[in-house]
Amino acid sequence: MGILIKNGTIVTAGDTYAADVLVEGEVISLIGRRLAEAGQTVVDAAGKLVMPGGIDVHTHLELPVSNTVSSDDFFTGQRAAAFGGTTSHIDFAIQPKGGSLSDGLAHWHEKAAGKACIDYGFHANVTDAHEGIYAELPELPEQGVTSVKLLMAYKGTFQVDDTTLFRVMQAAARHGLLVMVHAENGDVIAELTAGLLAEGKVAPHYHLAAHPEAAEAEATCRAVSMAGISGALLYVVHMTCAGAVEQLAIGRAKGYPVMGESCSQYLIVFEDRLQGADEDPFAGAKYVCSPPLRTEMDAEVLWEALADQTLQAVSTDHCPFYYEGGRDGRPPGKELGRENFTRIPNGLPGIEDRLVVTWHLGVNGGRISPNRFVALTSANPARIFGLYPRKGTIAVGSDADLLIWDPAARRTISAGRQHMACDYNIYEGLEVQGWPEKLFLRGRLIVDGDRWLGEQGGGRFLHRQRSEWL
Amino acid sequence: MGILIKNGTIVTAGDTYAADVLVEGEVISLIGRRLAEAGQTVVDAAGKLVMPGGIDVHTHLELPVSNTVSSDDFFTGQRAAAFGGTTSHIDFAIQPKGGSLSDGLAHWHEKAAGKACIDYGFHANVTDAHEGIYAELPELPEQGVTSVKLLMAYKGTFQVDDTTLFRVMQAAARHGLLVMVHAENGDVIAELTAGLLAEGKVAPHYHLAAHPEAAEAEATCRAVSMAGISGALLYVVHMTCAGAVEQLAIGRAKGYPVMGESCSQYLIVFEDRLQGADEDPFAGAKYVCSPPLRTEMDAEVLWEALADQTLQAVSTDHCPFYYEGGRDGRPPGKELGRENFTRIPNGLPGIEDRLVVTWHLGVNGGRISPNRFVALTSANPARIFGLYPRKGTIAVGSDADLLIWDPAARRTISAGRQHMACDYNIYEGLEVQGWPEKLFLRGRLIVDGDRWLGEQGGGRFLHRQRSEWL
Amino acid sequence: MGILIKNGTIVTAGDTYAADVLVEGEVISLIGRRLAEAGQTVVDAAGKLVMPGGIDVHTHLELPVSNTVSSDDFFTGQRAAAFGGTTSHIDFAIQPKGGSLSDGLAHWHEKAAGKACIDYGFHANVTDAHEGIYAELPELPEQGVTSVKLLMAYKGTFQVDDTTLFRVMQAAARHGLLVMVHAENGDVIAELTAGLLAEGKVAPHYHLAAHPEAAEAEATCRAVSMAGISGALLYVVHMTCAGAVEQLAIGRAKGYPVMGESCSQYLIVFEDRLQGADEDPFAGAKYVCSPPLRTEMDAEVLWEALADQTLQAVSTDHCPFYYEGGRDGRPPGKELGRENFTRIPNGLPGIEDRLVVTWHLGVNGGRISPNRFVALTSANPARIFGLYPRKGTIAVGSDADLLIWDPAARRTISAGRQHMACDYNIYEGLEVQGWPEKLFLRGRLIVDGDRWLGEQGGGRFLHRQRSEWL
Amino acid sequence: MGILIKNGTIVTAGDTYAADVLVEGEVISLIGRRLAEAGQTVVDAAGKLVMPGGIDVHTHLELPVSNTVSSDDFFTGQRAAAFGGTTSHIDFAIQPKGGSLSDGLAHWHEKAAGKACIDYGFHANVTDAHEGIYAELPELPEQGVTSVKLLMAYKGTFQVDDTTLFRVMQAAARHGLLVMVHAENGDVIAELTAGLLAEGKVAPHYHLAAHPEAAEAEATCRAVSMAGISGALLYVVHMTCAGAVEQLAIGRAKGYPVMGESCSQYLIVFEDRLQGADEDPFAGAKYVCSPPLRTEMDAEVLWEALADQTLQAVSTDHCPFYYEGGRDGRPPGKELGRENFTRIPNGLPGIEDRLVVTWHLGVNGGRISPNRFVALTSANPARIFGLYPRKGTIAVGSDADLLIWDPAARRTISAGRQHMACDYNIYEGLEVQGWPEKLFLRGRLIVDGDRWLGEQGGGRFLHRQRSEWL
Repeated sequence: MGILIKNGTIVTAGDTYAADVLVEGEVISLIGRRLAEAGQTVVDAAGKLVMPGGIDVHTHLELPVSNTVSSDDFFTGQRAAAFGGTTSHIDFAIQPKGGSLSDGLAHWHEKAAGKACIDYGFHANVTDAHEGIYAELPELPEQGVTSVKLLMAYKGTFQVDDTTLFRVMQAAARHGLLVMVHAENGDVIAELTAGLLAEGKVAPHYHLAAHPEAAEAEATCRAVSMAGISGALLYVVHMTCAGAVEQLAIGRAKGYPVMGESCSQYLIVFEDRLQGADEDPFAGAKYVCSPPLRTEMDAEVLWEALADQTLQAVSTDHCPFYYEGGRDGRPPGKELGRENFTRIPNGLPGIEDRLVVTWHLGVNGGRISPNRFVALTSANPARIFGLYPRKGTIAVGSDADLLIWDPAARRTISAGRQHMACDYNIYEGLEVQGWPEKLFLRGRLIVDGDRWLGEQGGGRFLHRQRSEWL
Repeated sequence: MGILIKNGTIVTAGDTYAADVLVEGEVISLIGRRLAEAGQTVVDAAGKLVMPGGIDVHTHLELPVSNTVSSDDFFTGQRAAAFGGTTSHIDFAIQPKGGSLSDGLAHWHEKAAGKACIDYGFHANVTDAHEGIYAELPELPEQGVTSVKLLMAYKGTFQVDDTTLFRVMQAAARHGLLVMVHAENGDVIAELTAGLLAEGKVAPHYHLAAHPEAAEAEATCRAVSMAGISGALLYVVHMTCAGAVEQLAIGRAKGYPVMGESCSQYLIVFEDRLQGADEDPFAGAKYVCSPPLRTEMDAEVLWEALADQTLQAVSTDHCPFYYEGGRDGRPPGKELGRENFTRIPNGLPGIEDRLVVTWHLGVNGGRISPNRFVALTSANPARIFGLYPRKGTIAVGSDADLLIWDPAARRTISAGRQHMACDYNIYEGLEVQGWPEKLFLRGRLIVDGDRWLGEQGGGRFLHRQRSEWL
Repeated sequence: MGILIKNGTIVTAGDTYAADVLVEGEVISLIGRRLAEAGQTVVDAAGKLVMPGGIDVHTHLELPVSNTVSSDDFFTGQRAAAFGGTTSHIDFAIQPKGGSLSDGLAHWHEKAAGKACIDYGFHANVTDAHEGIYAELPELPEQGVTSVKLLMAYKGTFQVDDTTLFRVMQAAARHGLLVMVHAENGDVIAELTAGLLAEGKVAPHYHLAAHPEAAEAEATCRAVSMAGISGALLYVVHMTCAGAVEQLAIGRAKGYPVMGESCSQYLIVFEDRLQGADEDPFAGAKYVCSPPLRTEMDAEVLWEALADQTLQAVSTDHCPFYYEGGRDGRPPGKELGRENFTRIPNGLPGIEDRLVVTWHLGVNGGRISPNRFVALTSANPARIFGLYPRKGTIAVGSDADLLIWDPAARRTISAGRQHMACDYNIYEGLEVQGWPEKLFLRGRLIVDGDRWLGEQGGGRFLHRQRSEWL
Repeated sequence: MGILIKNGTIVTAGDTYAADVLVEGEVISLIGRRLAEAGQTVVDAAGKLVMPGGIDVHTHLELPVSNTVSSDDFFTGQRAAAFGGTTSHIDFAIQPKGGSLSDGLAHWHEKAAGKACIDYGFHANVTDAHEGIYAELPELPEQGVTSVKLLMAYKGTFQVDDTTLFRVMQAAARHGLLVMVHAENGDVIAELTAGLLAEGKVAPHYHLAAHPEAAEAEATCRAVSMAGISGALLYVVHMTCAGAVEQLAIGRAKGYPVMGESCSQYLIVFEDRLQGADEDPFAGAKYVCSPPLRTEMDAEVLWEALADQTLQAVSTDHCPFYYEGGRDGRPPGKELGRENFTRIPNGLPGIEDRLVVTWHLGVNGGRISPNRFVALTSANPARIFGLYPRKGTIAVGSDADLLIWDPAARRTISAGRQHMACDYNIYEGLEVQGWPEKLFLRGRLIVDGDRWLGEQGGGRFLHRQRSEWL
């Protein structure tokens, strides 16, 4: 009965200490020294770290985009997440144009149902700000959804105008919702893009020219300022550059209730990748995402911000597309934009690699402590998105989402070994130290080394509480 | 023949020295020591400073606003300016909805014709961004107009969207025009205003709640960022607060070609004035302008920015309305908003007081030198708006726009003595030291103490060159 | 056997959750839900918080200063600390002039022996940098002393010169010691003081004029820069002002291994206190400490720095002197400086009030979370000073230093009820919410409400490990 | 009689305009358009700029250092300055140990007497702060000396301690003197140097390791803070790095009366030069100066500071030594340090190249305007050091120190063509555009292209007024 994890070192956002952990049912029931065995399954974690399972609050599984869909579904994507040490994620339920937020949520519930093998929640993604949504917002928490996302870019599809953004913020402030924004100035991007296309500039790397850093910094300032005025809790997703971080820091210094995340890719994969390779000039398409990859200097600023709590979390914005899609049963992918960079589906695979990449660069690189690693990848996401203390820590009463981490294991990241449904990996060839050895989801072992022990349907919808401002 | 100004101390943006100035015709022909008299009119400036006439690049004479018009026309306003030591101003020619920029310019030329008694230029004010204006922009310089203004606020009337602003910036960058912006987020203001009115909050001071500092800081960041992306030369008008200055400074530190002004009122008249008085709660209406008055702490930041060249100029945004208008031949005024602060015409009188207020607070207050005073009120405006070295300095060959300044004179500012067409003065009772004694416009004495010697029609249109980035 | 704390909410630096805690012997042995009682002493903590005991890393018990000694000895001071929720402190063992660091440590061991009733450690305080100390430094860790303090002020007594400071830093970097500095420019203070005395300015408030903020900011920059150059781990004690915090932040942004603390008094007691009262002009003497009290604006900056991890800890610099000393068996006190502010013994009582004041202002005031409170007052001090995870958290295996905190209790601070050996309290009359209810030292209940259950000799010397950089 | 400069464009700190300049005797008597010729010597400046002669406020001619002396005397050094467009300089009169400031001044007056061929002034350089100097300080202005320099580095020779620095600042504040400091922490440098030598690290490039940026930033903060406390006007010489500029900027933002200069070498010659060359590893010795050369990133920060008035001036710290000295009649030079970098005489040649290098990098490089160039190299130095308006501008009544500048001339800098007494040039091979064509000293033509027309004894001592804070 139960599981007894012995001899490990527990690492949470706040603490590091040697102790045994007893799991009974789905939760942690006891933490002690040299706990006596009494019929439990015993796991020896000697030399290993015992951390809370990762929480990725920014993913896009089965996301329809023009002419195709992101290539991981709720099973393949979640399984890949689990292989990377992640036990919970939150996906974006897209409001259909003309429809309601609930329509979007219902649709996403369908996608996940029966497939899910880790726990999952939804953000309500506003795309069409008709009057109806203002009636829905107050009722979202009852559905376990306490965060609303709006996009300031993707003109003509997802983009909302300032009036909508501000109205939603006012409503969010009133009803205790967290507002998430994709912060880029979509109007500027649209103009730049039109100019580039008019000049016949269609190669993947022109994506960079169309998405300047200042367009992200600007939109970040705009969202931060509106949050300050409205009092809404704000979370800026996928922050990539020094200019944007500066704006968030200004807002925080003024006491505005604003937070932000970066994603693991922005910490190590840089804009030069967009140039492609001699043998394949189009290979830059693999790295097309929005906001785009930036520079190493930006990454240094991001790391400082992650270390000093200007930023609170590392997520992935996982949204994979095959480089060579549209054949062999694959949905269409990056090849859609071979003649025109604006048709390249935006997004990168990454849900599987977040923890190992962040640990390697951050902890091994001397930039953050193991405790801060847990804060950025699990504890803060749990607190910000209303899952704490159920998720995000190792404490009595918490869900037994336990990651047994081998800090000595060395591996080389490669698409050949990955579980994400994608034909390339943006970290290809990166040698890392530190790897997930075992992963428990609410007390059940779902990954053991390279073995998959989870099951479709084993994941559960996360009915979230209100957000905490960190 | 000619005028010989003897024994004065010349003060320009760069220099302070004792010399005589000979004016022949409309220009300065000679600067020397103890110049021999030879039949000229001799002016003894012993103990006085000789400075270039002031240049006010932000005024609104005869500006139609809903239901009324600003109360100074091109004669009364310019005469008041002259009494305050100003010899040139630049007004905003408003594009009529559906019409062309040239229509606006033609209309403003008409207003000025025959009335003007000092020199004047026009900025082209975009209000309706149809395709036609993009054809007009390249041709503006031929008309002597090298600056284009857009407003990011006043939703439904003047406000332009980001696409328009960015397109105009791109065109401006291509054709060497300066872009001016009123930087406030009009969408946010509209939402806040609607909310206040819905709650029955109609008193003048609610104007403040509708125009938070962050809405100005945000829009400043947006304009600055777009200038950085497009390469357009930007000049942010009437900056009022620490948050906006911070955004301009960030842009300048990045090398973006951005500049800004404040106005004299923001340096000494603060937001508490909006509260009105016990005996007249509506008196706050006198102080309603946009952006609104701010705090003393903001004023300190503005002074620092004016001193260290983060800001380049002090103007007035002169746009007067009677407190008790609509009778005795006065156009309707502030009383229009007695039941609803949003109907109070926005604007303050000030064209007459700019130099004395700025000198008193700045030079006497130890915040800036006399040279910096000239830079902020004359030399920089001349350079930024393509008038230098014709205007803005005392140099051989320059227009003889000469201000004889008595640094010892003490006066108390009062509506009773002012020349502006308005029934109140925002600086009422302020005792200042330093006052214009004589003013020459291109060699003609137009003000001598309290006497008016100028003439309607004596002012001339300023055909401006391209702007200089300072 | 053992103690079982039931029904409480555990609050650590990282977590907040409901659980029971079992203490066996001196350590925490088990954390679980609804732990079964089995003969232990049961403490019901329902509605209460269970936090790790406070750690005050900056105290001066029985400190000899010219002509007197601080009025709390190792018993009275520690008992007062315990009544305030503190279970560990670190005092400064002063090297005698001409003697060794070990001489100082031996002397302080003697002071504590037999009196100590909570746990205690020592910092080695360098006052005389002869060659001998460089031989001693590498051996300090074996004695459980891993931090060395130097003073940049107190010319003629404690002050060291830059050469000494830098040499000690180089040695510290080599041998893994933490360097602590009192950062004020003693030379400047000496000159200002001499000037004041020469002008007959002897009242207590001239202490402020002698200790300007810039003298602290400067010395902070100097210490931070030397730490950056030498690679030594630096901890700046009792930081008081915006200028000093700015310098620490600059160093941290450059990646220098520097940290700092403030003290509770600087967060709420301001420089106006030095003025004394009408009825007792000398009363300002009660508030003479170095660096001096500052302004409310400085306190706001300190709070921001404490919240965002620019500062890591809140301590007290407890160093009490009677206001009316030298009679009734009291050692001489503040009255020594009645004729000359420089003879007022520098120091304030505070060891007892740190937690309640910091909680009230910080947590109740909305500036920090309960978790951050624990970080600042217990967890960070433990990590920085080599005591973690033995101290500073509630985790299995940690010492059972447990503070049962009643967040609802309201009390008014008053000298009349305090346990510190002093005839006044700097927080007199402050109403606070949140109070220590029970305190356990390594499993023994030593304070229960207002009852003292500890014993002289029950405290133990803390043999510390090397420091951690946070 | 007199000189008439026709058809040129006058460029001052504030203005740019076309005018003729009439010189009568030693001063500018008239500025006008198309001035009539009347027997004067006419100089046609068509296509040329007419600027005030350069002022170099930081030079060391005939400076004795251990075992040698800087290689330019008051004739060769001043002649070289003149060939570079400089008409005035201020040298440092070193107080002899045990002697008075007047002794130093008398000695330097002797050095200059009979040799001087441009105008010159002296700063009083304190090296020995006995009581006597405090009696001398108030009397320096009568001798035309209004600035006092102290060094915070060069332990054992020039370095003063904080008490001395602060006392001198207090006296300076009282008596209206400007305090100049060499800001590096000499104690830290001494320790680092001893450590390097102990490890046998004697090559020139170890000079860098001995003079870290943080040692300069620290000392800058210290001097700035003391200026803020004492109220003394401060001028930090030869600022080289981002950290130091940051500290100056902090002081200026607080309103402290502090200013600073950089030198032309720090703008383009970087620390990699210290490495020497494969064929001559010791060649790095040519570039040994203190503070040392820094990085290109530091240069960018310096340029920003020079452009935005955080820094006010560009000087040279001219202090040349032969690379191969001690033979052929040359004084010993850089070879003195062949076995030990600490014996390399510190200093670089540069008095001749300041204007052309600063113009080329600054004006041609788009970093500053021609007006700002004049401000940094002539007008600001004149104001700060009490020479304005006699020097530093082109205005009626000012000395006719006139530089006819050819902005189109292209030249390559080379030791082969230089007039400085040195066997190398740090800018060797640099191609510049913009070159001095003619130079007038108080109305006398002393340089005409490559011809020397000046005369020994033609230079005059500058009796300076009190300083101005910019």
